[in-house]
Amino acid sequence: MFQSFDVTASAAASKDRLERLRSRFDALGIDAFLVPRSDRFQGEYVPESEARLAWLTGFTGSAGVALILRQDAHIFVDGRYTTQVRQEVDPALFTPEDLIKNPPRQWLEEKAPQGFRLGIDPWLHTLRESRALQKSLGTSGGEIVYLDANPIDAIWDDRPAEPAGAVSVQPEQFAGRTAHEKLEQISAAIKDADADCCVITDPSSIAWIYNIRGSDVPHTPHPLAFAIIDADGSNRLFMDSSKPGRDAAAHLARVTQIVDPGELEPALAALGADGAKVMLDPGLAPARIAGLITSAGGRLVEKADPARLPRAQKNPVELTGSRTAHERDGAAMVAFLAWLDRQKPGTTDEINAVRQLEDARRTTGERLQMPLLDISFDTISGSGPNGAVIHYRVSNRSNRVLKDGELYLVDSGGQYRDGTTDITRTVPIGTAGDEEKRFFTLVLKGMIALTLMRFPEGTRGVDLDAVARSALWKAGADYAHGTGHGVGSYLSVHEGPQSISRRGLQELKPGMILSNEPGYYREGSFGIRIENLVAVEEPSPVEGGDKPMLGFETLTLCPIDRRLILPDLLSQEELSWLNGYHNRVRDVLAPLIEKQEDRDWLAMMTAPISQDPQHAAR
Amino acid sequence: MFQSFDVTASAAASKDRLERLRSRFDALGIDAFLVPRSDRFQGEYVPESEARLAWLTGFTGSAGVALILRQDAHIFVDGRYTTQVRQEVDPALFTPEDLIKNPPRQWLEEKAPQGFRLGIDPWLHTLRESRALQKSLGTSGGEIVYLDANPIDAIWDDRPAEPAGAVSVQPEQFAGRTAHEKLEQISAAIKDADADCCVITDPSSIAWIYNIRGSDVPHTPHPLAFAIIDADGSNRLFMDSSKPGRDAAAHLARVTQIVDPGELEPALAALGADGAKVMLDPGLAPARIAGLITSAGGRLVEKADPARLPRAQKNPVELTGSRTAHERDGAAMVAFLAWLDRQKPGTTDEINAVRQLEDARRTTGERLQMPLLDISFDTISGSGPNGAVIHYRVSNRSNRVLKDGELYLVDSGGQYRDGTTDITRTVPIGTAGDEEKRFFTLVLKGMIALTLMRFPEGTRGVDLDAVARSALWKAGADYAHGTGHGVGSYLSVHEGPQSISRRGLQELKPGMILSNEPGYYREGSFGIRIENLVAVEEPSPVEGGDKPMLGFETLTLCPIDRRLILPDLLSQEELSWLNGYHNRVRDVLAPLIEKQEDRDWLAMMTAPISQDPQHAAR
Repeated sequence: MFQSFDVTASAAASKDRLERLRSRFDALGIDAFLVPRSDRFQGEYVPESEARLAWLTGFTGSAGVALILRQDAHIFVDGRYTTQVRQEVDPALFTPEDLIKNPPRQWLEEKAPQGFRLGIDPWLHTLRESRALQKSLGTSGGEIVYLDANPIDAIWDDRPAEPAGAVSVQPEQFAGRTAHEKLEQISAAIKDADADCCVITDPSSIAWIYNIRGSDVPHTPHPLAFAIIDADGSNRLFMDSSKPGRDAAAHLARVTQIVDPGELEPALAALGADGAKVMLDPGLAPARIAGLITSAGGRLVEKADPARLPRAQKNPVELTGSRTAHERDGAAMVAFLAWLDRQKPGTTDEINAVRQLEDARRTTGERLQMPLLDISFDTISGSGPNGAVIHYRVSNRSNRVLKDGELYLVDSGGQYRDGTTDITRTVPIGTAGDEEKRFFTLVLKGMIALTLMRFPEGTRGVDLDAVARSALWKAGADYAHGTGHGVGSYLSVHEGPQSISRRGLQELKPGMILSNEPGYYREGSFGIRIENLVAVEEPSPVEGGDKPMLGFETLTLCPIDRRLILPDLLSQEELSWLNGYHNRVRDVLAPLIEKQEDRDWLAMMTAPISQDPQHAAR
Repeated sequence: MFQSFDVTASAAASKDRLERLRSRFDALGIDAFLVPRSDRFQGEYVPESEARLAWLTGFTGSAGVALILRQDAHIFVDGRYTTQVRQEVDPALFTPEDLIKNPPRQWLEEKAPQGFRLGIDPWLHTLRESRALQKSLGTSGGEIVYLDANPIDAIWDDRPAEPAGAVSVQPEQFAGRTAHEKLEQISAAIKDADADCCVITDPSSIAWIYNIRGSDVPHTPHPLAFAIIDADGSNRLFMDSSKPGRDAAAHLARVTQIVDPGELEPALAALGADGAKVMLDPGLAPARIAGLITSAGGRLVEKADPARLPRAQKNPVELTGSRTAHERDGAAMVAFLAWLDRQKPGTTDEINAVRQLEDARRTTGERLQMPLLDISFDTISGSGPNGAVIHYRVSNRSNRVLKDGELYLVDSGGQYRDGTTDITRTVPIGTAGDEEKRFFTLVLKGMIALTLMRFPEGTRGVDLDAVARSALWKAGADYAHGTGHGVGSYLSVHEGPQSISRRGLQELKPGMILSNEPGYYREGSFGIRIENLVAVEEPSPVEGGDKPMLGFETLTLCPIDRRLILPDLLSQEELSWLNGYHNRVRDVLAPLIEKQEDRDWLAMMTAPISQDPQHAAR
């Protein structure tokens, strides 16, 4: 299993650890210390050696930060983790705070006493974050103390070793472009920015540029590493040389020089001493990197990571890979959903469903000779009220039996060499109620409306977010998450800069892969989400129009549960899309499915839907 | 007439004036001088005494800036004025530039030589603008020279006197709240911002706070004045004391002290000398005001003008006024459109139509005892290809006869004591073509889609802009302007901060009035725009939903030309809205219309529309 259901958190040692941490404050000259969940790479997953927040507090969520003062401590988490944080941390030691409405920045601005000295590990905070913290403290004459070493590491006796996950080559047949070509593109961007070199700090950018994949963290196959690329294309990759296997080492030897990560600090200081103009992304690069360059006399050229946008715009080879991955993944989903449908209500549970689904992906991958390399995130497997928990993670403690009359929501994905998938389906266990069907249909209307959009060049995600919400809004409902996130190509399932949300200011460009996942959640009762991945298509002319328009190609192939659809709430255009989609799903997936009973199920689930002509909503 | 059709521009004197201006550069210690179109108040209209850009260059557009160098000069205008600027300025003296893609800021950044000294009149540039200019010049070691007096004024021999337009009271029966209440609200905001006082520089905010209206500039009834309001509510209004009539003087005496505008500079310097924390809006306040405060030792508290948001959220009395104004204005529009429809194609022209429309507003206002006090902007009256010019202004030079088979687009509004209107209708002259009808119907679909939106609290204009475009986008078409702007209450017809556009980051709040005006423009051929004003409604529950939703109330009442509608392209929901709207238009307007022939026309134009059941698009 790529997923565990154990509750690993333990707050038992927090009291002692806090005391030991605080005992160092005097020597460090600080009044408080900030413990973020992130590591130096600002990724979604951190290796165990970097799980300082969990080690100190017991909190295991994927986002959060603790502010350790001399007398008390606060832990800031977002709405997803309000309940979990109270279960995991010792309330006598940590006061939970709202990370969104009252982040540490604001807390410091409002509550820090005059001359407050806040210690941070500048490797763990981006340049932008550290500036914001400094600004907040500045109003009360306080300051940030950039510590040379993380004081937690000094007291973490049994700290796990840094990961040295194997690095493999991402072959050109899936990458579509050579590492050499990509390095040329990056060095051109460095020249354009009038910089001498660029520090790449995002491991997904490293993976993309060098056509390699890693295994340092769960679910996201990028190697934890930094790179310095010069304007002339020469470059150094700061990575443990034991990570690449023989093929990868040979591949890398042709495009870069592998340097021990311990050499990064001196290398940055040397750039500074040379007075170099060093390009970096202030929203990604650790403050420490910026500090090493500027304190040695170098200059920063602050620009977005030059690999971000080209990485997001998948090339034709990557798009072909994604299509194939989605066919395989769809076949696995059908095997799973057909199996689930054969279980009598009350006879299986959320964890068992996760096991079955991973097994379906594994066996389908083996059979179709493109193995499942990982799941793309911990499967969200929620029945009844658990389905209403947007980022639910099933554990032995929360596990529920799937009962008659409930909805079951399953959001999951696979990592294959040819692509990353992410799909959500919501299905009835036994017979569903009318209210569930009505909201399912409204969510579906939003999903289809976004799918069918055409839009001119320059359109951003923010411009389209409401399209997926409009049907729900008219019914007095909404969902408290964005409509779509970017997805990588056998990389992170949450990839920037593209998104479809209130904050989606990136223009949508051909080749970008995004999720389309509206939902509806009734707390304590049920949750609905329908998610397909889509790829942005090249602008093309529309008959009778005068402006070429972009659009979306649907990548995900899997039936949308027709038993939850009220056809009379759909327009003819929506019905026609749905029936066309189901025809395509059946035609493409049927040949990939092993068992006859699953193919029969697929045929049944993709049969055309029509309206009662007497009651049709037009 | 509130509008002139003369072409007033003259570039004849530009050569001499430029020479005289340049001859002062040495004494002033500058290499160049920037001449913006704006005055100290940053409004849409400037009085003749402030029309420095037109006086120097001959360019009469409503936005632009000239950069006068020693050897040459550049004039920056946006896409609306690309043609006009070439007609109005002497091309031997001024090189036209793109104000949007290559504004002076960028020009300076790329082209200014080392140590370049740019003179500006700091009264005419906002604090934010002047900082941006300084930043652009900083890269080449240049600097901004803040001139004590505008060098154009020194050579402008026959410069008109500053306007001293009469100031009247906006009675509580239309304002809905007393000036005293509003001053209390502003002083509370000043306290909240931890400031000692606030400088109000937006004349519309002055008009709103003090419940007065002015007549210094065309079409926008605000008085050019500044105010300083203290945290304790005491305040000074810097305005020529000859402006208010007896009633207004008595009204103002109860809430403020009128101070000669010449006293503003010393007053600001005195605040600075006291070390006051002075609140101002960096996007509105002249750099000069900020400079006077800080150079004397004061501190700036940079916040949005505290009157902006409350002014935008009309109170129930203002909304009632707006509804009544729109009924009256709708009756005038019907009289005009019915008259137009009685003219044989080829017998009237664009200017005559403007005259007829203003006359209809005047006579309707008189008859209904609420006179037309001004038009809210120069009427856009465009036939055939002129309709495709988005900000067309008809002149004796551009005037066209309305010909058979053409579309005619008329965008206009009235200023009444109870409200400001803004309406666009597009009508056929004789018989319209199928292409025109198809695009008219697509524009209408967008207008209806936005009208019918429901949305949760927190939704911004940017979130809804695409709703009005979606039907056009699917047909491969778009329009190159925002979908909606804010509208004042007997104030500016273009009011911030609310808007429905790509840049509309302001949350939509109950009481805001906005336009809803999608369009389609085929250059050289025809233009279509349909514009209603709407008011944002309070959130209200939706049956079967769990979240109250805001929505729009349509204020504008006037038929949408049914002869241009292809009913089969409309959904049942759209048709039903249209027929309901037309019923309301007829029921409300018929009693207000004077002539039987106009009432008959209204009945005909508001008759229900239905689809051919064989071809209905569902």
